[in-house]
Amino acid sequence: MNRAHSTVPLEQQAREEDLVARVVASFDGCQDPRLRELMTGLVRHLHTYVREVRLTEEEWNRAIGFLTGCGQITDDRRQEFVLLSDVLGASMQTITVNNEAHGDATEATVFGPFFVEGAPEVPLGGDIADGASGEPCWVEGTVTDTAGRPLAGARIEVWEADGDGLYDVQYDDGRTAARAHLHTDDLGRYRFWAVTPTPYPIPHDGPVGRLLTAVGRSPMRASHLHFMVSHAGCRTLVTHIFVRGDELLDSDTVFGVKDSLVRDFERQPAGTPAPAGRAVPGTWSRARFDIVLAPGRT
Amino acid sequence: MNRAHSTVPLEQQAREEDLVARVVASFDGCQDPRLRELMTGLVRHLHTYVREVRLTEEEWNRAIGFLTGCGQITDDRRQEFVLLSDVLGASMQTITVNNEAHGDATEATVFGPFFVEGAPEVPLGGDIADGASGEPCWVEGTVTDTAGRPLAGARIEVWEADGDGLYDVQYDDGRTAARAHLHTDDLGRYRFWAVTPTPYPIPHDGPVGRLLTAVGRSPMRASHLHFMVSHAGCRTLVTHIFVRGDELLDSDTVFGVKDSLVRDFERQPAGTPAPAGRAVPGTWSRARFDIVLAPGRT
Repeated sequence: MNRAHSTVPLEQQAREEDLVARVVASFDGCQDPRLRELMTGLVRHLHTYVREVRLTEEEWNRAIGFLTGCGQITDDRRQEFVLLSDVLGASMQTITVNNEAHGDATEATVFGPFFVEGAPEVPLGGDIADGASGEPCWVEGTVTDTAGRPLAGARIEVWEADGDGLYDVQYDDGRTAARAHLHTDDLGRYRFWAVTPTPYPIPHDGPVGRLLTAVGRSPMRASHLHFMVSHAGCRTLVTHIFVRGDELLDSDTVFGVKDSLVRDFERQPAGTPAPAGRAVPGTWSRARFDIVLAPGRT
Repeated sequence: MNRAHSTVPLEQQAREEDLVARVVASFDGCQDPRLRELMTGLVRHLHTYVREVRLTEEEWNRAIGFLTGCGQITDDRRQEFVLLSDVLGASMQTITVNNEAHGDATEATVFGPFFVEGAPEVPLGGDIADGASGEPCWVEGTVTDTAGRPLAGARIEVWEADGDGLYDVQYDDGRTAARAHLHTDDLGRYRFWAVTPTPYPIPHDGPVGRLLTAVGRSPMRASHLHFMVSHAGCRTLVTHIFVRGDELLDSDTVFGVKDSLVRDFERQPAGTPAPAGRAVPGTWSRARFDIVLAPGRT
């Protein structure tokens, strides 16, 4: 059928609208007003979409098959629905809606599917890499509130892909690497060794990867290092820093890049004395990231 | 955050709209115009929804968990995504969009998740029940085109739940029962024994069932018998017939009921002589369903 929506006869439009009304009314008995709002809004938009694009039955079947495929590949270490939300920009929109700008507070970006609870703690100046491949990278900065007051004891979770573009959880050997947490000192300062972020594709051997191929999109993410920063009385910040000069900054496949989060990662020649007493045989890089937390609940 | 959309500052609205525009533009390179239309329409509606309801990150997490749960329970015999589409009315809307009224052609309704390819053939007057529990039911009628011409050799697939409210595929023993196909005779007539349809719940021990409970909706479907009717040169018809007097006609949980599909199932007292030479010890019912196929592709 697949005719333009504007040419649908009025009688047919009425049948379609009557169905929408019946489905919306089926939630009248919902005792949770927020759930009712979420469900009726979902129904209205879903039906408007089906009607607008005149979705065919074959397309509907393919959509069901796509969702089924996402479910089949999802397990404890692979989350295809998060990837789907990410590549449709829905994750980033949710982050955007919930993290309105507050003064000069650091901006948030996508959480991604690779955070793991219970990552080890490293001391200030310690190495989160723990054997992960890649060029060493020194990261330092401060955590303050929007009034510029240092936040002592702020908890910083950091995680990243290794130099081969893979997170530890993407290996089969159960390793924990390139992820850790640490706390700021009494002056709100933090510092740690990591590896210089490199670009990598999101897992693209599943339904989401095939979708990206079908629409001519790349699965590549711009190079980045994840942060989650929390402190009592502040809005928890989930963000990344990106690498200035990375050619993927304008085409990050999950739409996570914000100009304010791009940082200089200054490459140091081999032999340059390194911080925290570390002997680095080759090149290394260094980046600074001063973090400002908005007020709010943890 | 969860503030009314109307109170969102203009600067924040601009950030949200900028993200939508970037996601839509990411599909600019898609070489398949229909796929591009489907994806950009999906993105626009998905983002409008997230922005309108000010979806929280916790709600987003629950949505991801819900979809993951649907994926985990789905297998060869259980299709939770179809159930989800059904209870949101999306299946019925897709059917409605693709089966515009054509003269007095019989109306379509939802396909449901229980059709199985390769059901056995029964002769005219044969019994599709094949041991399924339930009261015997005689069904007969004709298949014609919209000009009233009988359609000889039309293929009719019929399937239904048994008297215990379960389809054969919901049993663990691999049975095939209460499903078959048959063909109309030279005068476009068909007739078969089945079981009188009874109300039953859609599978509600999974995420979709929990959703229905949370919103105060029943999982019950109105009593019905499925038909899929095809003939060269005609639009294939997927439909049900419903039982007049069934108290669930107004609250069918998948929104499948149409007035034109409600039929009299006339109960016959025990001892009433039954068609096709069958000896029925107790009560039985009979229904008539004359089917009119619209012109179109099979």
